[in-house]
Amino acid sequence: MAKQDRAIRTRQTILRAAAKIFEEYGYEATTISEILAEAGVTKGALYFHFQSKEQLAQGVLNEQDSGFIIPARACKVQEIVDASMLHAYRLQTDPMVRASVRLSMDQRATSLDRAGPFRRWSELAQDLLDQAQAQGELLPHITTKETANVIVGAFGGVQSMSQALSDYSDLLDRVSDLMRLLLPSVAQPSVIASLHMSASRGAEVYEEAVRLTKEHEAALLSKGMVQLDHLAPKTA
Amino acid sequence: MAKQDRAIRTRQTILRAAAKIFEEYGYEATTISEILAEAGVTKGALYFHFQSKEQLAQGVLNEQDSGFIIPARACKVQEIVDASMLHAYRLQTDPMVRASVRLSMDQRATSLDRAGPFRRWSELAQDLLDQAQAQGELLPHITTKETANVIVGAFGGVQSMSQALSDYSDLLDRVSDLMRLLLPSVAQPSVIASLHMSASRGAEVYEEAVRLTKEHEAALLSKGMVQLDHLAPKTA
Repeated sequence: MAKQDRAIRTRQTILRAAAKIFEEYGYEATTISEILAEAGVTKGALYFHFQSKEQLAQGVLNEQDSGFIIPARACKVQEIVDASMLHAYRLQTDPMVRASVRLSMDQRATSLDRAGPFRRWSELAQDLLDQAQAQGELLPHITTKETANVIVGAFGGVQSMSQALSDYSDLLDRVSDLMRLLLPSVAQPSVIASLHMSASRGAEVYEEAVRLTKEHEAALLSKGMVQLDHLAPKTA
Repeated sequence: MAKQDRAIRTRQTILRAAAKIFEEYGYEATTISEILAEAGVTKGALYFHFQSKEQLAQGVLNEQDSGFIIPARACKVQEIVDASMLHAYRLQTDPMVRASVRLSMDQRATSLDRAGPFRRWSELAQDLLDQAQAQGELLPHITTKETANVIVGAFGGVQSMSQALSDYSDLLDRVSDLMRLLLPSVAQPSVIASLHMSASRGAEVYEEAVRLTKEHEAALLSKGMVQLDHLAPKTA
């Protein structure tokens, strides 16, 4: 295994351990020693990747919106639906994404700056809404920034409610309901008519995203490039 | 002070202490002894009102949607807007409501049933939507249950995002944005045109609700009735 490969794996091991411990004890009560013990790596290895508890938490927070390619769509409103459905599907199926989202929703973690994921999701949504606007997909009065904030905020609450009431089993239905209620106030009727936003969309987009992400990584490897840092969420 | 009066005050003292300790340590890590020490009441007094940590937490969870009268409106969609704005305003200004909402959003409190507030808010929203539907305020295809769930879930996330990004200072603006985006998919255009949903609505409804709640309590007292339990959210 190449040196860089090992470094990536160690980093992931540490992040998984950090996610688990933050989930169990909460950000405030967690100590680096507990993460160290859970990860089973050397102190040197941990500090090579993360210099503080805050950095470990930011690493976990990054995991919810990185490392995955959201498939590009000609219709940008569809791409917003797909990004939401993909995220919902990953929340249901990936413990790391779940831990990351819980950490970003942890209102008691007062000494941790949890704004990052909210800001990054909002920027992604606003970027897609700006493109949608440029293509004439949106209703005339829409301001993309406020709309992006509402979509991201609303998603956060819908996932929280789904977790409290059904441990995420109804998440994709709830996200589908949210999209069906929000988007008609945002996009032109002709755009709404063409959208796929049923609950089954999550699994479909996930399969496509996994394939695209693997192809992207293979292409990087074939050029001798290794990504130590995670992909920012991006379009294909 | 009458005996019942004292009991109400002691109960509130205990709930405020519980809210503070849950907020500081999280539900899982909190012990009843810590709440007891913070409240400064006798063990007997605490156990008279609450028999377990779970009951204390449920008491705190109840505080977010009880004890307050939501002013009745002829237009039931307006009443939904007002209930949301009132709740947002109380979140900004009342530490107890804030602690209660944080506890209901605490995804790490796995041994606590946090479904209560979500269910009660959803039932309230659905009840108002059913009335709105009976009066012809809603668009024909609306299913009130799903719509109520989306409104309640979305509100939860918008408040969470507002807390993370601005410590609630932009909460009323965000709730106003949410209403303006969601409701046109729910209600008839003629209803939408008549709605008050600007950010300033929160303070207005709050003043009215305080007055109504005081009048209601005075009326009960004059009949010699004292409410040991809290008012369920109800219309005037």
